Amino acid sequence: MTQRKVSLDSLRELVLNCCLASGIPKEDADIFTDCLIAADLVSITTHGVDRLPVYLDRIKLGVTKVPTNLTVLKESGASIFLDANDGLGQVAAFKSAKLAIERAKQNGVGAVVVKNSGHFGRAGYFTEQIAQEGLIGFCCTNASPRLAPWGGTKALLGNNPWSFAFPKGKKAPRVVFDIANSVVAAGKIREAANKHEKIPENWALTDEGRPTIDPKEALKGILLPMAGHKGYGISLWVALLTGALSGSEWDSHVTNIYDYSRPQKVSHFIMAIDLRAFAGKDNYMDILDDMYSKIKSSSLAEGFKEVYLPGEIEELKRESQIKEGVSLSPVTIQKLANLTAKLNISLPQDWFKLM
Amino acid sequence: MTQRKVSLDSLRELVLNCCLASGIPKEDADIFTDCLIAADLVSITTHGVDRLPVYLDRIKLGVTKVPTNLTVLKESGASIFLDANDGLGQVAAFKSAKLAIERAKQNGVGAVVVKNSGHFGRAGYFTEQIAQEGLIGFCCTNASPRLAPWGGTKALLGNNPWSFAFPKGKKAPRVVFDIANSVVAAGKIREAANKHEKIPENWALTDEGRPTIDPKEALKGILLPMAGHKGYGISLWVALLTGALSGSEWDSHVTNIYDYSRPQKVSHFIMAIDLRAFAGKDNYMDILDDMYSKIKSSSLAEGFKEVYLPGEIEELKRESQIKEGVSLSPVTIQKLANLTAKLNISLPQDWFKLM
Repeated sequence: MTQRKVSLDSLRELVLNCCLASGIPKEDADIFTDCLIAADLVSITTHGVDRLPVYLDRIKLGVTKVPTNLTVLKESGASIFLDANDGLGQVAAFKSAKLAIERAKQNGVGAVVVKNSGHFGRAGYFTEQIAQEGLIGFCCTNASPRLAPWGGTKALLGNNPWSFAFPKGKKAPRVVFDIANSVVAAGKIREAANKHEKIPENWALTDEGRPTIDPKEALKGILLPMAGHKGYGISLWVALLTGALSGSEWDSHVTNIYDYSRPQKVSHFIMAIDLRAFAGKDNYMDILDDMYSKIKSSSLAEGFKEVYLPGEIEELKRESQIKEGVSLSPVTIQKLANLTAKLNISLPQDWFKLM
Repeated sequence: MTQRKVSLDSLRELVLNCCLASGIPKEDADIFTDCLIAADLVSITTHGVDRLPVYLDRIKLGVTKVPTNLTVLKESGASIFLDANDGLGQVAAFKSAKLAIERAKQNGVGAVVVKNSGHFGRAGYFTEQIAQEGLIGFCCTNASPRLAPWGGTKALLGNNPWSFAFPKGKKAPRVVFDIANSVVAAGKIREAANKHEKIPENWALTDEGRPTIDPKEALKGILLPMAGHKGYGISLWVALLTGALSGSEWDSHVTNIYDYSRPQKVSHFIMAIDLRAFAGKDNYMDILDDMYSKIKSSSLAEGFKEVYLPGEIEELKRESQIKEGVSLSPVTIQKLANLTAKLNISLPQDWFKLM
């Protein structure tokens, strides 16, 4: 099934209307909508509009609360500790990024920890907001268990995503890095299973802790961390910066987005650093631009056509999809059409030809 | 050649006396000595006393300046920007960690950037200092080029080390994570070359950018980053947090410790986070202890005998070597004996039997 293109405006209208009809107040609905669509714009469709029905079902069932009330539990010069009261992760993280920027502008650095939040989608969206304001952004979140500690066989840690972003230079684009810590995402293993293909031995273990090349065995087992013990350590780092610093649940007690029985109890950590507190914007830009020009003019390894900064390929995708329309799968388009029907919302005019 | 054991006291006396004889003032000499020996105590001998002659040669040649003068270039509530004036990296980073702790205690978070510094040894030493005070530590440094950007063949980025540490719980030990970003350290490739063994294909590229299993070709080429583009992105992150934030040299212009022609121009980034600014120490400890007990009781994957927290194995090594003596190679012992002769320092009594 080939992808279809929808105009950014009509997609935005559709998603926003579904959010409003589900009781998300306008300001939060704008944030949430932009966050989901931004993921599709850079082709991270697993964190995009495809999941809108799930988020809205959670609201309907009362396990995600709207509006997203952020309560300040504690604050000092450079830090804020928030309770998101089981609201939307995207709204909590977006507002936290703004608060981190404010604190950083006053104190050089600003850090915000949020507890009782939910799945926040793509971590890179929040660090991008910080880099857009000319500051360095860092963000991470815990998640329900998918990785075993190195040497173990039981999924205890989340495949905890983390991201950093740096402001653009005069020539260099904004740098955005956004990863999880497994060798590959579970989606790739599911893909191999669907295509009846084998998987490499370093992707996953069976539920008994044996290496496997069978994707079906792997899906019942656990994902392996990237770079072995290093990936395990990095996921643990995020687990501690979120669940332990927030004194809330750590990964092992965080539920996934498809568990409708209770709030997820996710925690986030979001930080901003002001360039002006150190050598300043001009010096920063000179160095980033020098790096960029040396990296772009590097001789190429076998099999490569170009060398990129982290986030550079995504930026090209974003620009092209804003111009030419957002690429969605027929499955996602059908899901959204069903959702509008369920919520009694009219389908945007140009969507009828997609059906 | 088998390792020899030397008593911690006599090793400390020897190293400290060499430092004092080389013009390092007592306070800095204590810091520097403890930092080097701490690396040997956890068996990271590449960052330990074996390198003492190199550091002291740099001082003699005037490319490392003593005393290490730290000039405050800028400060705001939570941040300090320092110039180390080409002093010792260990002294600059240790004092920066103390300043980060102070700022974090006042503001929730504290971040220090240092420019014009030198090779600081083991990153984990400085985050341990922060965790020891009950705060969360983070630290990274740039370094001379060893890694190519992903898809390139020219070493532009350092194999930039970074570390985090978290305070211990009631049962759980302190968590200390300390890595560089290549698949393996160059030392492992050198070892394979010495043993005339092949290396796996994912460790390094030839200087023409082709994969190689020949360690000699690999040593002339470039190290490959762990987890492919992710390891590249992480080294770039450190490069930006250090060289770009400090407006000083980035990796490509940083020289290595063996280049005696000029100061290295290394930059560090060091941060502390106060638990009290968020959910507090008791909540933090409860969660860490719960993680620890679940991780330690995890069922084991094939080939493993125990699951550890990052830093746990090193802590066991430290305890055993403090008690039973520090393990040094005959080569290192000879180097230190030569150094004492050169500096006209008497060899500690119990070293004569080692010669």
